[in-house]
Amino acid sequence: MNPSTANKVTETDKANAGSADQPALPATTQYVSREPHSYERWLIGKVLHMVGSPPIRFRLWNGDLIEPDQGDARYTVTLNDPRALYSLATNPNLAFGDLYSAGRVDVDQDLSGLMALLYRSIHRASSHWPKWLETLWRNHHPRSTGLEEARANIHHHYDLGNEFYQLWLDQAEMQYTCAYYESASLSLEQAQLAKLEHVCRKLRLQPGQTVVEAGCGWGGLARYMARHYGVTVHAYNISHEQISYARAQARRQKLDHLIEYIEEDYRNINGQYDAFVSVGMLEHVGTDHYLELAALIQRTLKPQGLALLHSIGRNRPMLLNAWIEKRIFPGAYPPSIGEFVSICEQGNFSVLDVENLRLHYAQTLTHWLDRFEQHHERVTAMYDEQFTRAWRLYLAGSIAAFQVGALQLFQVVFSHADNNHLPQNRGDLYRSPAAPGSH
Amino acid sequence: MNPSTANKVTETDKANAGSADQPALPATTQYVSREPHSYERWLIGKVLHMVGSPPIRFRLWNGDLIEPDQGDARYTVTLNDPRALYSLATNPNLAFGDLYSAGRVDVDQDLSGLMALLYRSIHRASSHWPKWLETLWRNHHPRSTGLEEARANIHHHYDLGNEFYQLWLDQAEMQYTCAYYESASLSLEQAQLAKLEHVCRKLRLQPGQTVVEAGCGWGGLARYMARHYGVTVHAYNISHEQISYARAQARRQKLDHLIEYIEEDYRNINGQYDAFVSVGMLEHVGTDHYLELAALIQRTLKPQGLALLHSIGRNRPMLLNAWIEKRIFPGAYPPSIGEFVSICEQGNFSVLDVENLRLHYAQTLTHWLDRFEQHHERVTAMYDEQFTRAWRLYLAGSIAAFQVGALQLFQVVFSHADNNHLPQNRGDLYRSPAAPGSH
Repeated sequence: MNPSTANKVTETDKANAGSADQPALPATTQYVSREPHSYERWLIGKVLHMVGSPPIRFRLWNGDLIEPDQGDARYTVTLNDPRALYSLATNPNLAFGDLYSAGRVDVDQDLSGLMALLYRSIHRASSHWPKWLETLWRNHHPRSTGLEEARANIHHHYDLGNEFYQLWLDQAEMQYTCAYYESASLSLEQAQLAKLEHVCRKLRLQPGQTVVEAGCGWGGLARYMARHYGVTVHAYNISHEQISYARAQARRQKLDHLIEYIEEDYRNINGQYDAFVSVGMLEHVGTDHYLELAALIQRTLKPQGLALLHSIGRNRPMLLNAWIEKRIFPGAYPPSIGEFVSICEQGNFSVLDVENLRLHYAQTLTHWLDRFEQHHERVTAMYDEQFTRAWRLYLAGSIAAFQVGALQLFQVVFSHADNNHLPQNRGDLYRSPAAPGSH
Repeated sequence: MNPSTANKVTETDKANAGSADQPALPATTQYVSREPHSYERWLIGKVLHMVGSPPIRFRLWNGDLIEPDQGDARYTVTLNDPRALYSLATNPNLAFGDLYSAGRVDVDQDLSGLMALLYRSIHRASSHWPKWLETLWRNHHPRSTGLEEARANIHHHYDLGNEFYQLWLDQAEMQYTCAYYESASLSLEQAQLAKLEHVCRKLRLQPGQTVVEAGCGWGGLARYMARHYGVTVHAYNISHEQISYARAQARRQKLDHLIEYIEEDYRNINGQYDAFVSVGMLEHVGTDHYLELAALIQRTLKPQGLALLHSIGRNRPMLLNAWIEKRIFPGAYPPSIGEFVSICEQGNFSVLDVENLRLHYAQTLTHWLDRFEQHHERVTAMYDEQFTRAWRLYLAGSIAAFQVGALQLFQVVFSHADNNHLPQNRGDLYRSPAAPGSH
């Protein structure tokens, strides 16, 4: 890739964003109103049975309704053409998202409710799947996260345009990671600031210390640490759009003497720091690179320093949903808790504190989706209808994944194994509310 | 083993306790005052070099001193006979403990200081060991922890006699596990009560709930939960001495209507409970049995219940010191953090909270060793000098292991993966001091 254009978001990028090589309604497929064949009805029943017979009604392309075997339908899914059915039956993990984005599949009711129902139902049913179905439906290989590929992966998602993210993220610090709903009634803005505060407290930051941040997003955490804790920050990110925004904000807030935003891969971090922090980057690292990450932290963390990794995770190793990995987050892989702590085992670190904020992410995403829907016409004008539908499904599906426990959110604090300069207990994290108003 | 005698501690048991099949000074070995051979001096230098040239002086059987290669000696180790040297050189992990217990090796200064020095020095040096030395010195295979063997393993250690443990454990609740030094100035009694309170808070116990405890020791946690939280407890233990004591205490404290102490292996737990707790038993379970343990908790924890496992652990997988496993804790294996959370992965649990109390255990053990030394004459009268020396080394060596980070202490809280009835945050654990006086 030409370095001079590598980080520019082109209009073509934007038009493809969220859809990439995703097929829109092909020219050969027409919305048809022909009668469904009897084997098509049979196939729908078969698919429903395989995913655990959830209470879902199907509306077919000609308006025919197929009711669920058992009980009353709670959701109605419309198939707008016969080929949609064949795609769903052969590759549902990828096809559902593509078909929904293209408008070839529709859902009458609350999308995240349907996704939660499907997650739970499929989880129960999949333990009884025959081998051939497992092979057919789980045919997914995530992309590489090597140095070159990482740049393309990150570009795909995070360089969609700051204006887009500003429509639905919190106004204060543009946090595109799980907020901390210290109490359930917090606003998104409050909960995101509480998250930043909670992270700073876990790192026990002291004025004058140095911090390195791997994957800094729009730079909100770095600015919060500099402003409230008086530390110096080196913040790394390979998203050009995010770095530009972060630098401008730091200048505006007169924090640029404390923060250096560095447009580089985390693997190029050098120097030694009192704290190592990464919020929402580990998902993009890939288990193949955990040993490298462990060695990096081992090298860059001072003997008495603390490190914190905040990442989406799993209860056990499992590939990310194919559609999310292919269309939304190329190369992403949320680690299981075991894979997560393997970083600490490999780096000769001592795990000090793990907190799981799973339901906080469901609430964060609910707030994001609400705002997204308020601006959906604007999003469609910026990109297109297919993009809007893809992002609606991604946000709604993620709410469901956190609600049912398919995804977790781990914050892990660790130190060098021989560091005895440790906090006596965790009470200092709770000395006062972390949400704004407490200082 | 005859069931009628299986749980009785015989006088022979007591005499062998802590020494088991450990060789005292064999009849053929005499304390000798002959001149050391030149190859014996060479061997000492070689061994010292292999363990990283720590600043240790050797005093030989004839009084000769061998100074360390570099710097001034901080510790003096006496070898009382030539054979002690050969044992040390060929199998130091096992021999050091046996020789020290038998009085064939002696240490002039603070034993835990020497052990910490050795831990650190060996940790650094061992990465450069040739393969043959690795093979020679790490020739250890821990004992099985199957149903039958577990009974013998536990009997060996925990049935030494309640009177012995009463000499040096906390007076209040006979806690033989890591205390919680919420502040460094707490007494052992306060810190043990704070630990019990901290565990109860982590389980978010409510009056009327049911709790099952796997490996209940002398029953202190069960009584604390019943007394302060009004819960009903089924507490399992295979140590007959401990169960007898626990039952008597519960009757005396009029808590026996709330607690059932059950003399059974944890694998025989049945029923369903609001909370599953185990403090200091996982070390005795063995990784071969983690899947079984995970299935047990999966089966016995109610859908909205919380589970807590408290155990000595490691930063990475590693065998327990051979002498500790052979003479002190047969069958014991502290899991690495990865092995620990594999229990949660295997049981389809969600890890909610991990806390590492490593330095709290160093402080607990320091308090225990202080009291032990105050009563060392009484201990020798109850058992013998060899027993007293073995336990001194075990306690001092454990202080060192926690101080240098060779051992960790993990408290892990987890729930069923689909349990959404979770605490909003962890602030409630810190609402008031956990140590006594706070209620």
